[in-house]
Amino acid sequence: MLKLYYNPGTIALASHIALEESGADYEAKKLNPAIMEHTKPEYLAINPKGRVPSLVTDRGILTETPAILLYIAQVYGASAFPPPEDPYDLAQLQSFNNYLCSTLHVNHAHRKRGRRWVDEQNTAAIKAMEIKVKSNMEECFQMIEDEMFEGPWVMGPDYSIADPYLFTITQWMEGDGVDPADFPKLLAHRKAMLARPAVARVVAEHAAK
Amino acid sequence: MLKLYYNPGTIALASHIALEESGADYEAKKLNPAIMEHTKPEYLAINPKGRVPSLVTDRGILTETPAILLYIAQVYGASAFPPPEDPYDLAQLQSFNNYLCSTLHVNHAHRKRGRRWVDEQNTAAIKAMEIKVKSNMEECFQMIEDEMFEGPWVMGPDYSIADPYLFTITQWMEGDGVDPADFPKLLAHRKAMLARPAVARVVAEHAAK
Ligand SMILES: N[C@@H](CCC(=O)N[C@@H](CS)C(=O)NCC(=O)O)C(=O)O
Ligand SMILES: N[C@@H](CCC(=O)N[C@@H](CS)C(=O)NCC(=O)O)C(=O)O
Repeated sequence: MLKLYYNPGTIALASHIALEESGADYEAKKLNPAIMEHTKPEYLAINPKGRVPSLVTDRGILTETPAILLYIAQVYGASAFPPPEDPYDLAQLQSFNNYLCSTLHVNHAHRKRGRRWVDEQNTAAIKAMEIKVKSNMEECFQMIEDEMFEGPWVMGPDYSIADPYLFTITQWMEGDGVDPADFPKLLAHRKAMLARPAVARVVAEHAAK
Repeated sequence: MLKLYYNPGTIALASHIALEESGADYEAKKLNPAIMEHTKPEYLAINPKGRVPSLVTDRGILTETPAILLYIAQVYGASAFPPPEDPYDLAQLQSFNNYLCSTLHVNHAHRKRGRRWVDEQNTAAIKAMEIKVKSNMEECFQMIEDEMFEGPWVMGPDYSIADPYLFTITQWMEGDGVDPADFPKLLAHRKAMLARPAVARVVAEHAAK
C-alpha cells in the first residue's frame, strides 16, 4: 500500500489530495511538527533531504511534488485525472507544475525558511527576505492569473494534477500577505477546489489537531 | 522547426545539449546578455517570465527545464535517451530533475540573483546570500554523490535527460566556490559528458564570443 508522509500546511497537501481523488489505496502519515519529526534519523532514512512529501511505494520511495503527482496520475489517475497522452500537452502540464516548484514554492519559503540561504544568526537578512515575499508572490500569482490559468481548471476543461498543486499554494496567500480578491480566477479556483468532497476531506485532516 | 532561446552559461545549456544529442532539427538562438535581451518586450512576448530557456515548437512555446527535457526525450529522444516507459522509473527521473530545478538551481541563483528575494538596495543582505552559496551547493552535491547518483550515468547504465541537466549545474561548481575534486563521481561524470561529441559542440558554442 502507498504511504504518504506529510506535515500539515505544507506542499504535501497537493500529493495528499491527488491520492484521495485518485481512489488509490493509501495511508497518510502525519509527522509531528512539534518535534521536527521530518529532521529525525527515522525520517531521514526515508528521505535524506528531510523534506515532505515522501511517497513510499512497493517499488521504492519517491520525493519531489511534481514527480509524485505525475506518478499518481499515471498509475492511479485514469478516472480522476488521466495524464495527457500527447507529449506537448504533458509538457505544458509539467511546465506549470515546475513553475510552482521552482518559483512560487521557493519564493514562499523565504518567509519562514530564510535561514536556508543566509547564516541563521543574520536576523537582518532573514527579515529582509520576509519582507519581499508578499510582492514576489503577487507577481507570480499575477503571471498565473494573466498568462497561464486556462479555466475553469488550471489546464482548461479537464481537472489535472496542476489543480491540487496550485490550490495548495493559493492556501498560503493570506499568510504571505496576499489578498486573494486581487486574483479573481485563482479565488474562484480555490472555491471550486474546496467544493470537491475529496479536497474538503483532506483539508480537514490537515487542519485537525 | 524547433527554436531554443538561450543565454550562454545558463541552465539553457541542458536543453541545448539534449536537442543536439537527439538529432532533432532545431535552431539555437543566443540572446544578447550585454543588453539583457531576455528582459526586452520581444522576448517577453515569447516567455513572459523573462527567463531562459524557451523552446518554440510548432504547437506552441515551452518553458521550464524539466518539462522541456521530458518533451525532447519523448518526441525526439527515441535513439539517444528514450524516456522510461515504466511510470516509477519515469518518476525517479523526474524527481532527480525536479531536485535540480527546485533546490540546486535556486541555491546557485542566490549568488548573482539575490535581488530577487530582497530589496535590491539591500547590499548587506545580498552579500549574506552570496556567502552561503558555496556550502549550500556542497550540501546538495554531497546528497547527489552519496544518495542519488547511480553511475556511470545519473540514473544508472542508461544515459538520460538527467545527464545534461546535472552536467550543466556541475559546470557552475568553480564559480560557486565548490571544489569538483571533493565529488569524485560528479567529476568523472563531467569528464564523461565532455567526451561526448555533441556535448563538446554545444559547450564550445556557449563559450564562443
Ligand atoms: N521540491 C520539494 C520541496 C519540498 C519542501 O521543501 N517541503 C517543505 C514543506 S512545504 C519542507 O519539508 N520543509 C521542511 C524544512 O525545511 O525543514 C517538493 O516540491 O516536494
Ligand atoms: N525554473 C526555470 C528557471 C530558468 C531561469 O531562472 N533561468 C535563468 C538563467 S540560469 C534566467 O533566465 N535568469 C535571467 C534573469 O534572472 O534575469 C527553469 O528550470 O528553466
